[in-house]
This record gives sequence, structure tokens and C-alpha cells, in this order.
Amino acid sequence: MDKATARHIIDASMGRTKADLVIRNAMVVDVFNCRSFLSDVYIKDGRFIGFDGDRTAEREIDAEGKYMVPGFIDSHCHIESSHLSPSEFSNAILPSGTTSVVADPHEICNVSGLDAMHYMLESAENAVLNINFMFPSCVPATFFEHSGAVLTAKEVETVIDNPKILGLGEMMNYPGVVAADDSILDKLDTCWKRGKIIDGHIPSISGQGLDAYLSTLISTDHECETPEELVEKTGKGMYVLLRQGTVCKNVEALVPGINENNWRRCLFCTDDRQPQSILREGHLSYGVNLAIKAGLDPYRAIACATINASDCYGLKERGAIAPGRFADFFLTERIDEIKPISVFVSGEKVAENGKILKRSPHVVPEKVEGAVRVKDLSLSLFSLPLTSDRARVIRILPGGVVTAKDEAVVKRDERGEWVHEKDKDILKITVIERHNNTGYHASALISGYGLKHGAIASTIAHDSHNIIVIGDNDDDMLLAVKSLKEKGGGITLVMDNKELSYHRLEIAGLMTDESVESVVECLDELHRVVEEEMGGVNREIDPFMTLCFMALPVIPAYKITDCGLFDVTEFKFVDVSL
Amino acid sequence: MDKATARHIIDASMGRTKADLVIRNAMVVDVFNCRSFLSDVYIKDGRFIGFDGDRTAEREIDAEGKYMVPGFIDSHCHIESSHLSPSEFSNAILPSGTTSVVADPHEICNVSGLDAMHYMLESAENAVLNINFMFPSCVPATFFEHSGAVLTAKEVETVIDNPKILGLGEMMNYPGVVAADDSILDKLDTCWKRGKIIDGHIPSISGQGLDAYLSTLISTDHECETPEELVEKTGKGMYVLLRQGTVCKNVEALVPGINENNWRRCLFCTDDRQPQSILREGHLSYGVNLAIKAGLDPYRAIACATINASDCYGLKERGAIAPGRFADFFLTERIDEIKPISVFVSGEKVAENGKILKRSPHVVPEKVEGAVRVKDLSLSLFSLPLTSDRARVIRILPGGVVTAKDEAVVKRDERGEWVHEKDKDILKITVIERHNNTGYHASALISGYGLKHGAIASTIAHDSHNIIVIGDNDDDMLLAVKSLKEKGGGITLVMDNKELSYHRLEIAGLMTDESVESVVECLDELHRVVEEEMGGVNREIDPFMTLCFMALPVIPAYKITDCGLFDVTEFKFVDVSL
Repeated sequence: MDKATARHIIDASMGRTKADLVIRNAMVVDVFNCRSFLSDVYIKDGRFIGFDGDRTAEREIDAEGKYMVPGFIDSHCHIESSHLSPSEFSNAILPSGTTSVVADPHEICNVSGLDAMHYMLESAENAVLNINFMFPSCVPATFFEHSGAVLTAKEVETVIDNPKILGLGEMMNYPGVVAADDSILDKLDTCWKRGKIIDGHIPSISGQGLDAYLSTLISTDHECETPEELVEKTGKGMYVLLRQGTVCKNVEALVPGINENNWRRCLFCTDDRQPQSILREGHLSYGVNLAIKAGLDPYRAIACATINASDCYGLKERGAIAPGRFADFFLTERIDEIKPISVFVSGEKVAENGKILKRSPHVVPEKVEGAVRVKDLSLSLFSLPLTSDRARVIRILPGGVVTAKDEAVVKRDERGEWVHEKDKDILKITVIERHNNTGYHASALISGYGLKHGAIASTIAHDSHNIIVIGDNDDDMLLAVKSLKEKGGGITLVMDNKELSYHRLEIAGLMTDESVESVVECLDELHRVVEEEMGGVNREIDPFMTLCFMALPVIPAYKITDCGLFDVTEFKFVDVSL
Repeated sequence: MDKATARHIIDASMGRTKADLVIRNAMVVDVFNCRSFLSDVYIKDGRFIGFDGDRTAEREIDAEGKYMVPGFIDSHCHIESSHLSPSEFSNAILPSGTTSVVADPHEICNVSGLDAMHYMLESAENAVLNINFMFPSCVPATFFEHSGAVLTAKEVETVIDNPKILGLGEMMNYPGVVAADDSILDKLDTCWKRGKIIDGHIPSISGQGLDAYLSTLISTDHECETPEELVEKTGKGMYVLLRQGTVCKNVEALVPGINENNWRRCLFCTDDRQPQSILREGHLSYGVNLAIKAGLDPYRAIACATINASDCYGLKERGAIAPGRFADFFLTERIDEIKPISVFVSGEKVAENGKILKRSPHVVPEKVEGAVRVKDLSLSLFSLPLTSDRARVIRILPGGVVTAKDEAVVKRDERGEWVHEKDKDILKITVIERHNNTGYHASALISGYGLKHGAIASTIAHDSHNIIVIGDNDDDMLLAVKSLKEKGGGITLVMDNKELSYHRLEIAGLMTDESVESVVECLDELHRVVEEEMGGVNREIDPFMTLCFMALPVIPAYKITDCGLFDVTEFKFVDVSL
């Protein structure tokens, strides 16, 4: 709010000047009393200025008794998971009624550090969607891999005063927090000093460990999975985020833990939602509808998706249809099954019937490229010499994120190099550092992926997003990596020395400025090619999402980074050879 | 929170070092889930660090199953109404379980401006009670009188960044806000820029006027009187404060408006509580107990008095028994009728069985005196020449705050001066500017006070706190004013040229560093003297509280300021003579 705006909206609210817009006959959802009432709603300078009253307006829209719901706030998301630039993310999610997000640019910052943060901030400034940020707290996620950047408290200090940065993102380093690790306390201190929010990330920890973690004033959790956890965590002062992502889906399991009182401390989030999920199921509204179906009162569900997020994150000018707040809202026929018909941001209609009307301008990332900086691209990168006929094997489990520790008898050639055997489901997987041309790379063996022939490579590989490539032969693997380097990031399919299909991710190798529709079309085509032309993969996994989690050394049991095969349960690198 | 503290409390929470204190067998009140559970509670460095767990502690206290309740937060009060300095206020209210207050030093700032604000801040720094402030928004309250200071946006800017100042205090100037008055927008802008809170004050206004007022992001109201108002105001985004002062008592009337959902937006406050009320009935707990008796669920009532205030005012480190928060709490046998047995602030026992254990040090106000700066103290100050035998008369109504416009036939002497008539209940009332030696003074006539003989004078006279004196003869009135000047502020009783009793208010003429017990004793003595030695006053009013509201030109109908007799309904000065 500023003086000029205040003067405009007071004058219009008092009826001395015209409002810009009036929504007539709206069934206004009051998230404070959890009720609705029929009223006109006046808007001036992008803000609500009042209900029924003696005013006039430049334009009017008849809501015809439809429910008028405050725009939803996604309390925790990674825009990168949508494969979309912030601009295209805005275009993609506004039609389903999410008008604000709290985004943690953890992925892109792992690639490009502060440059990425500034690109995201600039994109947010220009986006129609209200994009707020939490500064990523854990870049790199571990020291068992090479990310593109290291963000310490020093880097946090340079941007944390930006009002669009609400605090520190998900503090995943639980062991570091409860060990009172100095570098972590330094980061937390940037928020303590400013009263900013610190997001938590604490799956499966309860009791004393949770107490110690929370003693640092970490205040949210989006990893809550059971009703009992929800009651304990809210009871200890946390806001609990009901998550409905593409892979992690917690809403229905958590609803039984929401009671008459603790609902005020529950929010909704998507965390990671793939473009297909956004386009086909919607965004935050999908989780909200699930919660309502599971028994949560619709008004309270809406409050969780709006005013509760506003309260938690200090977004005081959003989250309710109330005088002075930004006029972010949507109209829906029903509130027990929300389907936004038209969506408004700051009093302007931005989407209708599932289609975006007001697109966000693209922002060219000057310092963030889909760079693949690998100096020597040659077959030697894929060399996997073994000292034994028995080798450790990463075994993919159904779901495709967690793996098991396996071992197998393998074949070696005269130089001791691993040799692929057609009748065995064991492939080579290689991770190549791509950010700073360090030359780090490592290969290992993996089973359960099910690819018959060829190679699949990607620049999405959580959390450091080095190149990850899987295949049955080094030639295809090399071509795949070469393609990623030439085109500047993405996902590629190669077979018999030919690129079959390619998904461009020109922004940090993670995101694209293409529309959600064309991204989904492209991903569908990739799936089709894998299935029809490459003979498919294990039906229990998604070929691309599974691949991108194989380099994440915080999820058990074996993972591979650019530094080697990592035993997550033992927390150390191990040889492939046994 | 700082790094050193964080390290201490994490270490103790993890059991690596000893906690300072453990409260064993406490029935912990969880304000988030509105339930209680039996647990030990560990405290280190003044903060809660966890519940049952594998830890040790230096000291332990057995709660023997008593309820452990977070310390209450008074969301809006004027410390000055207690007649006590912040230090003595702390000593007075802690025993009843209020451990934090949000204080608006509106009265003392009207006397001494920024000097007063700094004195209050310094006192707060040294107090055991957690004292937070809202910067007074309306000094002076009106331009129809001379206050000791004028506080504009320029003055606000000099202190608003102090973390103890949470925002701008009750914005009483409703007409100014909805007129978009420039100087008011300037003040509001100091908070908009910083995301600080703006307290409202909007009795009896609903609908369009309320909408316009709220468009400025004013977010609280403590003038709510009916359940309907409560629903409208919460529905429009306000936090509604349930007030239980000495004179203004709204709790019982508001409880029926609190429903299953809007209770989260309700807080408790005392606004103005006299020392007698504090000593005899308690502080915030009095209102909380009334609400419970009136049907509000005890857990929710406690939440309104704790976490809701924490949420509203951003006091994130208070308001709940949760890890990381300050260990402010009390033990009580019952929660359906709260009687704090022992009270703790930052983990230290500060009161027990109604008695303060840890007193706050006195802070000597260097620049804030009970100054009575009146250059010429002479009988001429009380001259009331009339040009007619008919005069306007302020008529006190039962309750003693609102007055009526009256007129009477009066007697004049040879010079035209008003002459008191023993058989008529008409007295002279005089207001003398006391802050800046301007020489402003005015006299008028008043009925309904009922004093038989003598004079009563006070340096408490809302909101400008000039000297106000009432009496039947100029000699006694002069002596009363002389006494106030000599002693530096207070309330005095004079009869037949003799001072009968005196209540010292050496701090700005409003407060004293005496204890609440001695202040109450002194006020009781004043009442006794008025009753027994001066023949009493009208039984429907309190002699001192009524007197101190006679100079407040925002409450109808006739009031007197140092500028003359003011017709509040016509909003102009009028002659005493008709």
C-alpha cells in the first residue's frame, strides 16, 4: 500500500469516485467466519474496497450467485518441477485458481546459485502470478556431489532483505540442525535477525529430535504423513502443509488428523507437481478438492488454502476477500468441488474456463543457461573398469525413488571393462558434473529400469542436476550427452546412434519457456518413443522421474553422484566392484 | 534468538547438556489443538526446549498435574490507566498471569511526546513483564485543546523501527481516515512500508464506512460491542479484541458472536484498567474467566489470550508452550476458572499466590516530569465573567463520561463574575494548560457532580492531560492547582484553604513509582475523604474518573478544554453565557 493507492481506494470506497469494477451477486466466501453471504464486491486499484454500499463502478460483472473464493496460495512449491519458467508456470497454474505461491528455487539455485535467485526474482516481478520465495537453505544438498553453486549465510545476506523473499527454504539438514552446526546456525540467524520465516523439512522425526529441531524456531513442515504426526507437529507450534504433489501425496492420509481447532495451522502445498499433473488435474485445487472429499469442511479447506497461508507467511495483503487486500479471487459454481470458472488477479480477469487470458512476459535469463560445461566429451567418460566378476548394483524399487542394495555376477572384457548382457536387466548409469567443468564423473550399475536398448540422458538430476545418463552401450550414451551439451539442457532419447526424441530445457537444464501444453505434448512423445520405439521400461516406474532421482544421495540405499557410487545407509562411497 | 542461545538450547534439547529447569507432571495446555496432555517440560536459556525426553535439568519443579498455561498477552492496554509506572505495572499484573502486553502510551505521549516514548521503551527494556508498544497515532487527539506534544509521521519515523514498537496505535480519527487526510496517510505509510500493524478504534461504524476505514489495512478493533459487530468485523479481516476494562466491559456481550471458526481472530484486552480493578479482580484473567463463564470453551479462551495475540501482533516467540518460544507460563488448578498459582517469565518464577516475587527496577524518567508549567498562578485564572443571567451548563450523566447540554439561570456579582449558589448543584470547572506555559485556560459551569464544598484537581484529564479543577470557590481551586504545581502532578482534595488528601503522580502527572497496593490505598483514602470530609459527590459517578473525562472533546455533548467550552455535537466552541 502507498499513499496514492490508499487515497484512490478510500475515495472509491466512500463513493466519492468510481470503483474500477464491481462483482455483483457474488456468494462471497468469508474465510474468517467460514460462511458465505450474497453481496456485491467493489474493486479499485487492484484491491477489494468493500461490499454492498452506495458506490458506482466503471465496469461490472454479474457473478449470478456463484461462489467468490479468495485466490489460492500454494505454501510450498518448486517451480522447476513443472519444467516451466516462472512465466509459463504462471500461465499454467492460474486457470486452476492458484494466484500466489511460495516457491523455493532450490533446484535452479543448485545449478546457478545467486544468478538463478536473481533470475527468479526478476521473473516474479514480471509475472501475473504472485510469486514469493524462500531462499534455498541447502545448496548443495550434500557434499557428496558437485553442484553448480554453494550458498552460505553470506549469500543469503545479500538478498534476504528483498521483500519477495519471505525467509529460508526447507531446512532439510536435520542432522546438521540438531548438531547445532555452525554454518546452519549462520543461515538461520539471517532470519532470526529479521523475524523472517524458516521452513522445515522433517519427515518421520518425532519426540525429542523434533523438539530440538523446533527449538530453532523452524515453523513449517510439508513432510507430514500421518494424522498423529499432524497433531504432534501442530501441537509443537508448526504449521503443517497438506501436500499433494505428483509423487508425494499426503492430503487424504492427513485429513483425519485435522480437528476442530488445529485446522487453523494447516496449509496446502504442491511441493513438486509435474506438468502433466498440472495440465490434467489442476494445481492446488486438486489437493483442496481431495481434502473436501475426505471430509474436511469446504470453508475450512478454503481457509487452509488462503488465509492460513497468509497468516503463516505474513502475506497480509492476500488470502481473503476483505477491504484493502489484493483482489485475487475466482468464481466457482460449487465449493464442495471447486472448479474455477474465471480467475482474477488484482481485480483483472486472467483466466477463464481453464484457459489463461493474461500471459506473463518471458524473462530472458542472462546468466542462467542450460549450460552443459563438460570439457572432454569422449567414450572414456563411460569407462567402468571392474576388479572382480561380482559387482554392487543399484536396484530400483517400485515407485522409483528409493533403491535397494543389490549385487550381481557380471561380465568383463579383456581390459576389465563391464560388458552389457542382453539377457540381464543391468544397465550402466553415469553422472557427469556439468556446471563448472571439473571433470568429475562416475559410472555404476543399475537394475530394475528395464530399458532394452539405447540411452536416456537428462540434465534434471536431483539435487545437483549434473548430467545423468543410463544405457546399454557407451556410443548411445555419449551421443545423448553430446546432444544435451549442444542443445543446452533437457532430456534426450538415443538409440543406435540416433536421437529419437528430445525435450528442451534451456533454462538451467531444468525449465523451458515453452507452454505447459507443448511441454506435456513433448513429454508424452518421449514416453511414447520409450514405449514404442525403445521397447519400454519397467512398468512400475516413470523412466524420466526415476532417472532424475538416482543421483540424490539422501534417499536410500544406493545412489550415484559425479563422485561415485554412494551407500546412503552407510553414508559413504563404495566401489562398484565387490 | 541468536546463535549462542540456539546452540545452548539445541544441546540441552538433545540431552547433550543439562536443561536449566524441568516442570514435571504438567498438564500442558496445547493452544494449537486446544487440548492438554501430561508431560514434563524442559526449559533452557529462558525458552521451552521440549517435552518428555531423555534429558536432565539443573532444577525441577513438580507441577503435580496442574495445568500449565502459556502466559497471557494483553493485546491492547494503556499502562497509564493503572496510575503505575511500567515497572510497578509489571509488578502489579504478573501475579494474575499476564506476561506480555501490547501497550499504547497514548496518554503519556500527549504530555511528553517522544521523550515519553523513550522513557516507556527504556522502562520496558528493564521490566520483567514483556512490554511491547504501538506508537500512538493520535497525539493530540483533537486540535481543540493544547497537548504537551504533537506527534506527526516525522516523529513516528524516528522510532518505528524499534523492534519493541509493533506498529501504530489505535487510529481514533475515523473521519480523518475516510477523508484520506494527508497527515494520517503519512502516519499509516510508516507502517505500510514496514509491514507493521495498525490498530483500529472504530466504535459503532459498520457497512460502507467500515469498509473504507479497513481499506487502509487497519487490522484490529477493541471497540466492538455486539455479536453482530464481531461477525462483521472479523469477516472483514479484523482481529476483534474482547475488552474488559474498569469502565468499558464488553466480554460477556461479545461471547455469543464467537463461533466455531472466528474465535481464531479474537483476542483479549484490558484497554483501561484502574489500579483497584487490577488489585481486586486481576488483570486479563478476569476477562478470560468471564468469557469462559459466558460459554467460551476454556481452551479457546486461552488461545484467544495467547496464540491469537501472538499471531496478530507477530509475537512469534510468545503465546504457546512450544520449543523455541520464551518460557512464559503459569500453573493453575483449573482451566475453567483460571487462578494462577505461580507465574513464570522466561523460565523464572516471578509471582506466586498473587504476590510478585521478581520486581522490576524503577527507571527514572529523565525528561518526563509531572511538570505543571503554569506561569501565573493567581485567582484570575478562575475568572468566569458572564454577559447574561442565563448560562450553558455541562450536565454530567450517570456513568460520568457522556454529558448533556444544559442551561441554567445563574447569579453574577457586580463585575459580572459567576457566583456559586449553595442550594444549586452547579460548580465551576476550569482547565489550565500545563505543558508549555502557553497561558491557555478556560472555565465553565457543570452540574451533576454533587460536590458540596471545596475543590478537586487533577493532572489526569484525557487526552491532553492539562490541569482540570472543579470547585465551589476560587480560593480552594487555586490552592489545589498550586499544590499540583508544587508536588509535580497528581490528584488533590482541598477544602477551606487546606489540602485534605493528595495522590502523587510524579511521572508526567499520570503515573507513579509507588506500588499498586499503596496507590489503591491512596485512592481509597481520597474516596473516603471526598465521602466523609467533603460531603460526597453524586453517587452515580466516580469523582476522579468522571473529572478526568470532562476535558475530552470527542465524547458528547459539552466538554471543556483549555480553549473553552466545546460543543461536541456541533464541533465548535460556545460561550458560557447565553
